[in-house]
Amino acid sequence: MEEKEISQTVVGRLPRYFRYLGELKDEGIERVSSQELSDIMQVTASQIRQDLNNFGGFGQQGYGYNVGFLYDEIGKILGLHKEHNLIIVGAGHLGQALVNYTNFERRGFLFRGIFDRDAQVCGRKIRGILVRPMEEMEVFVRENNIDIAVLAIPKTGAVEVAEQLVDCGIKGIWNFAHVDLRVPEQIQVENVHLSDSLMKLSYNLSSRENEG
Amino acid sequence: MEEKEISQTVVGRLPRYFRYLGELKDEGIERVSSQELSDIMQVTASQIRQDLNNFGGFGQQGYGYNVGFLYDEIGKILGLHKEHNLIIVGAGHLGQALVNYTNFERRGFLFRGIFDRDAQVCGRKIRGILVRPMEEMEVFVRENNIDIAVLAIPKTGAVEVAEQLVDCGIKGIWNFAHVDLRVPEQIQVENVHLSDSLMKLSYNLSSRENEG
Repeated sequence: MEEKEISQTVVGRLPRYFRYLGELKDEGIERVSSQELSDIMQVTASQIRQDLNNFGGFGQQGYGYNVGFLYDEIGKILGLHKEHNLIIVGAGHLGQALVNYTNFERRGFLFRGIFDRDAQVCGRKIRGILVRPMEEMEVFVRENNIDIAVLAIPKTGAVEVAEQLVDCGIKGIWNFAHVDLRVPEQIQVENVHLSDSLMKLSYNLSSRENEG
Repeated sequence: MEEKEISQTVVGRLPRYFRYLGELKDEGIERVSSQELSDIMQVTASQIRQDLNNFGGFGQQGYGYNVGFLYDEIGKILGLHKEHNLIIVGAGHLGQALVNYTNFERRGFLFRGIFDRDAQVCGRKIRGILVRPMEEMEVFVRENNIDIAVLAIPKTGAVEVAEQLVDCGIKGIWNFAHVDLRVPEQIQVENVHLSDSLMKLSYNLSSRENEG
């Protein structure tokens, strides 16, 4: 499918559509109007129509949306019809949590390798996957067709690891390190800055108090 | 400080300013121009001025920003000068990862209690904090002045737990469960939907391929 440049705000909403459509599908619902979807998702029907129009619409006047079809199409737009090979750097608590989260696998995100700089951790297995030393990372990425690296490491060292990963051909980085990575434009980076998220919550609590 | 309604997009950028200013401060830098900050943060100087003007500006013509002052002020805006008492629901891998992340504590987010529905896990300690059964949650929240609950549990059950928490007076929920919570308007919810984030990365990888 050919797309025009879609804003990251719209892209950011697609997984939510995908999630709700998946739930409707699981409930055996075959069609849904933009108004019904709007009620469930608590966004306006016009927003839904606008968002989906970015990708060609999918709705039919007077019929609404076919749930299964729209679910599959959004899945394809999200690239979920393809498998992704992932490595995770950092076998600490967060790394373990991510490896143990089986939902990712169900969506085609397959953890192939885990790397850690702590020699004590290397050689262990997490959900059957061997933890390897950092020195093996570059060769592993090249030889196993790894396209996504997950950085579950502290800020220190993350920039350097990202550079190594870029050098050995990684395409995307899912970054949990609390630092902004500087990578070439063609590398996709998706940040999960947990502290930032918690501070945002703190701001909203605080501004609410000031109002009251 | 009195504020007008600030967009969540601007609010979402504040922690990043705070992070960069903290780094400058740690490096002993006392003042910074919006242009210098723009170079480091890779956003436009005009964006920085606009964002900060929402809160009264802080800059001085020809001087720029006083790093320490601006850091402190943004910290206050983010509510980081106050302590928050947190509980975490779910002592699985993710819950453990969050409890073990000491940076939150340094910012005044103090984990006071951990709750889990698995009787096998209850009674254990994570970083010195006892894991308690869910049945004790409501009384604990009321008696320990808990303002934030972290939901590190699967989708199933999350809506119900959120309702319980609201009933016993929680003010904010940091939600890692992959479901949208329906809570009264005055309750602040900050979602971390990890799957959504990974799907967004997948979309960006996929749309990049289609271009190429």
